[in-house]
Amino acid sequence: MYNCVIGRYHEIATKGNNRIMFERTLLDNIRHQLRNLEGVRAGRVRGRIWIDRADGNAFTDCERAAIADGLKRVCGLCSYSFCARIPAKLEDIEKGAVRLAKMLLDPEEDGVTFRIRARRSDKRFPLRSHDLEIDLVTKIAEEPDMRSFSIDLDNAKITLGVEIRDEFAVLYTDSVKCIGGLPTGSNPRVLSLLSGGIDSPVASFLMMKRGAPCDYVSFHSAPYTPPETTEKVRRIARHLNRFQMSGTLHLVNLAEFQKLVRDNCEERFRTILYRRAMMRISEIIARRTGCRALATGEALGQVASQTLINLDVINRSVDMLILRPIIGEDKLDTIATAEKIGTMELSAPQVPDSCTVFAPTSPATAAPLVQVERQESLIPGYSAVLEKIASEMESLPTDEI
Amino acid sequence: MYNCVIGRYHEIATKGNNRIMFERTLLDNIRHQLRNLEGVRAGRVRGRIWIDRADGNAFTDCERAAIADGLKRVCGLCSYSFCARIPAKLEDIEKGAVRLAKMLLDPEEDGVTFRIRARRSDKRFPLRSHDLEIDLVTKIAEEPDMRSFSIDLDNAKITLGVEIRDEFAVLYTDSVKCIGGLPTGSNPRVLSLLSGGIDSPVASFLMMKRGAPCDYVSFHSAPYTPPETTEKVRRIARHLNRFQMSGTLHLVNLAEFQKLVRDNCEERFRTILYRRAMMRISEIIARRTGCRALATGEALGQVASQTLINLDVINRSVDMLILRPIIGEDKLDTIATAEKIGTMELSAPQVPDSCTVFAPTSPATAAPLVQVERQESLIPGYSAVLEKIASEMESLPTDEI
Repeated sequence: MYNCVIGRYHEIATKGNNRIMFERTLLDNIRHQLRNLEGVRAGRVRGRIWIDRADGNAFTDCERAAIADGLKRVCGLCSYSFCARIPAKLEDIEKGAVRLAKMLLDPEEDGVTFRIRARRSDKRFPLRSHDLEIDLVTKIAEEPDMRSFSIDLDNAKITLGVEIRDEFAVLYTDSVKCIGGLPTGSNPRVLSLLSGGIDSPVASFLMMKRGAPCDYVSFHSAPYTPPETTEKVRRIARHLNRFQMSGTLHLVNLAEFQKLVRDNCEERFRTILYRRAMMRISEIIARRTGCRALATGEALGQVASQTLINLDVINRSVDMLILRPIIGEDKLDTIATAEKIGTMELSAPQVPDSCTVFAPTSPATAAPLVQVERQESLIPGYSAVLEKIASEMESLPTDEI
Repeated sequence: MYNCVIGRYHEIATKGNNRIMFERTLLDNIRHQLRNLEGVRAGRVRGRIWIDRADGNAFTDCERAAIADGLKRVCGLCSYSFCARIPAKLEDIEKGAVRLAKMLLDPEEDGVTFRIRARRSDKRFPLRSHDLEIDLVTKIAEEPDMRSFSIDLDNAKITLGVEIRDEFAVLYTDSVKCIGGLPTGSNPRVLSLLSGGIDSPVASFLMMKRGAPCDYVSFHSAPYTPPETTEKVRRIARHLNRFQMSGTLHLVNLAEFQKLVRDNCEERFRTILYRRAMMRISEIIARRTGCRALATGEALGQVASQTLINLDVINRSVDMLILRPIIGEDKLDTIATAEKIGTMELSAPQVPDSCTVFAPTSPATAAPLVQVERQESLIPGYSAVLEKIASEMESLPTDEI
């Protein structure tokens, strides 16, 4: 009998006129997730998203599974319910409620707690919400072959939800919690620095969840890093892209720059010199590809390159806004998010990355800016090298990652 | 019988030699929280923090309550347990375990599930952890007037913990979860932009939790904002300071600048012009007071001044690192944190703030940098006005807030 899905959201991007933009972007994402389901369509009514079959029939089990799987990857969606959509007429609602209650109330179980929650967005409907609840419970209890149940308004085992809108009414039982946040695409695109670690995939996801779609830039150091380095990052980017409509992965070989650092600079500054070069190359790529900010998985104080002093020195290498969504997060919380979104198992295998190439034994934890700039001045043709490296990047669009 | 507390932490700032700095900073914070408890002292053994009375006696009920209250505000502490500290000798441990088990096993309740968890950091101790667990359970069961219990290794109602260290052994039951993160003071101080809202107190707290102590800067617009504006912020800063050893509140009157904006600039840019001025004044104050970064409660896409485009334009007003710990957070999660740390009820009252003074009816959501800079050039003596406003700030040290 489930022929409809009602989707809910809570946070409106920037109030007023932007609400329509927000709803449209949310719909775009939902349609993208359901793109392989022929004959299934999505639309919006005031304050809600709906999904149904164009022919009005109930969803097949296969369609229900595919919809549930797709909606759990839609940023901006707060929760959804599979519903029976019926005309917004009292008689139809009563019939539907009785039918659903019979399905829900297990004939093997006596005295189960039950309640009805009605919500009326169409104020012209003749009964108030509370009166409708009483009417429906009475109708259900009057049914001859109905099992006994007891009403519990606070902690009912089974809740039957009724929502009456201008266009139609829906009946449902379960409400499934989703990602929440803002729909991806309601903010401009950002370029996310993606390593094979645990943190940067979580940072990318959080940016999508605040509305900013992500492209990715990842650094390797072939032949000093193995092919597994980029294979791992490709797997992560592919997985992250399941939460958005598209995201390009740019692969950049930093080895040439790293050799120059090795040959010209003090060893203890290597990590910070790498990081500043990565930021600068990322800024060049972001400008060229229309990304409006960089995003990183930096967490304050977690490792040597993430002390406040070093973050400041790294931050000063570019003009562009750098967003650091997990800067205030505990590692354990970041790991929990990584597990929830499914990137943890992809990040787990230990593979060498760019940062470990010629890594110093004792990295500077508080490198003064003047010293770092002096080290950079020792590298012949610094800016030209970065430009050259950026121009040689390999860009993989969504379907080629 | 509880004469000791064992405190645990998990995340070590930057590995290696910094571990000692980390432990010392954690101890400083614990001692600060316990500063009014005469005769109670704190120290560290490898990997653990301990607290006891200098005279070796058990804590009084009053001391236990005060310690519990203090430790829940120590950033960097992961969990703690009230313990019985005894010599690390088998005979003493057996006696202590029997005594504690008698206290724990309610004489009114038969068949309660019970287990012992032993941990041996002193590998010279004659019994392995598992053998010690069996030995202690046997000793407890042999007691003549002991109530019956059943052993359940997975889901015991009561767990008796035993930890054997080089210096002593401890017996405990409950482990209380704390804030976690890094000890405040393990990173340099930041200047947090504090409004009366929900977000910025949470951002300040998260910075402390990642090791950076906070000073605060708050803007008012007297006489256009009432005295309640700064009173509310003072209450919030006072509360936040309970999580750290000290934090100065700088109060800045922005009215003079706002009048210039009102009289010289396009209305729809007002909010963004205010925000850029606030950042620049904050940077001046941070430089003067030795703060190494700014922190804000900005969340991507939440309001008009927090679109990605506007954040970028605001970000470009200063050179200093800006940390935005809740940039990727949902409002509902931020509210949950505000409730947990106790700032929600302080932020709840609606009081006018600087941002609402001469606020535009329709603020620009994507203000191009060139246009914003052009507006700023229309304000006579822009930089000098900001310098003057910064120099006239009122600075309240911790005990005067």
